[in-house]
Amino acid sequence: MATGHTDPRRRARILAAALDHIAEEGVAGVSHRKIAARAGVPLGSMTYHFSGIDDLLREAFTLFADHIVAVFEEHLSRADDREQAREAVTDLVHALSGGPRRDLVISQELYTLAARRPEYQELTQAWMRRSRHMLERHFDPDTARQLDALIEGLTLHRALDNGAPHSRALTSEAVTRITTPRGGGRP
Amino acid sequence: MATGHTDPRRRARILAAALDHIAEEGVAGVSHRKIAARAGVPLGSMTYHFSGIDDLLREAFTLFADHIVAVFEEHLSRADDREQAREAVTDLVHALSGGPRRDLVISQELYTLAARRPEYQELTQAWMRRSRHMLERHFDPDTARQLDALIEGLTLHRALDNGAPHSRALTSEAVTRITTPRGGGRP
Repeated sequence: MATGHTDPRRRARILAAALDHIAEEGVAGVSHRKIAARAGVPLGSMTYHFSGIDDLLREAFTLFADHIVAVFEEHLSRADDREQAREAVTDLVHALSGGPRRDLVISQELYTLAARRPEYQELTQAWMRRSRHMLERHFDPDTARQLDALIEGLTLHRALDNGAPHSRALTSEAVTRITTPRGGGRP
Repeated sequence: MATGHTDPRRRARILAAALDHIAEEGVAGVSHRKIAARAGVPLGSMTYHFSGIDDLLREAFTLFADHIVAVFEEHLSRADDREQAREAVTDLVHALSGGPRRDLVISQELYTLAARRPEYQELTQAWMRRSRHMLERHFDPDTARQLDALIEGLTLHRALDNGAPHSRALTSEAVTRITTPRGGGRP
């Protein structure tokens, strides 16, 4: 079965196992030993493929960000104009907030890590840049930035409110408001 | 020194120690033994004051939510009208995102816990209700809900972007947009 340290599937298995561990138990308990056991690889594979726990976490969270960016892309690529882009963003908020709980947990684990250890903010910064870049296909950069923050807040609040999560109409209204520059005449 | 189990200061010391531990090491490692040692109380105090770890976490996060709600209140109580309320909310986003990193970490720890274990969403729901309630002094309920989500997203994105955090002008513009219902004539 094993083809040695350089087997690229091993690296992928280790990253998948790290994300599974983070989703279930959090970043706190990540160790070479636990992830190797979960991935079914020898302990030596860990140090062969990753320079340390920080490198492993960086690569695992980057892989996860790729996944969420793909969900963004999947929704936004359907939009041909600004009105469709608003619809797509509304769908995106409901897809993310009603989607796999695992994704929500891993996102929050990354944010917690970046809040605690600013050196991980390279990851959150890169992720935000990628999201904004996609939104900039339809909106000016300042609007894209405001909208990206709104998507974050609406998704988080909806996902953390099992009792009475807000409606699609409310999301749609919020997205329209934030993407509607004020006309002249107001202060 | 000790005046026995019923000393109310012991309960407060335990909760403060629990929040310190959560800020530094996360929810994952919380145990009666660790928190008792940090608070400088006998282990028996833990089970006297709290029915278990879940009860301790609930009480600690409730105390923390009280603190953040007080920051909300401190800003919003200054506002006499809608325009001042927008200013106050803008100030609030910058106070929270530029404020103690500890508050950001503890918030994220709570969100992560609530994402992983939905029974903790009672806490996040109650917290969101309180924030919205304060915003409803100046805005209709739907607007308050949108604005609360925007505050969350802007604060989080600003706090996690050490590189080039967005400006006060951008926050102010976003707050104005989300609190400006669209006029007639638009679809």
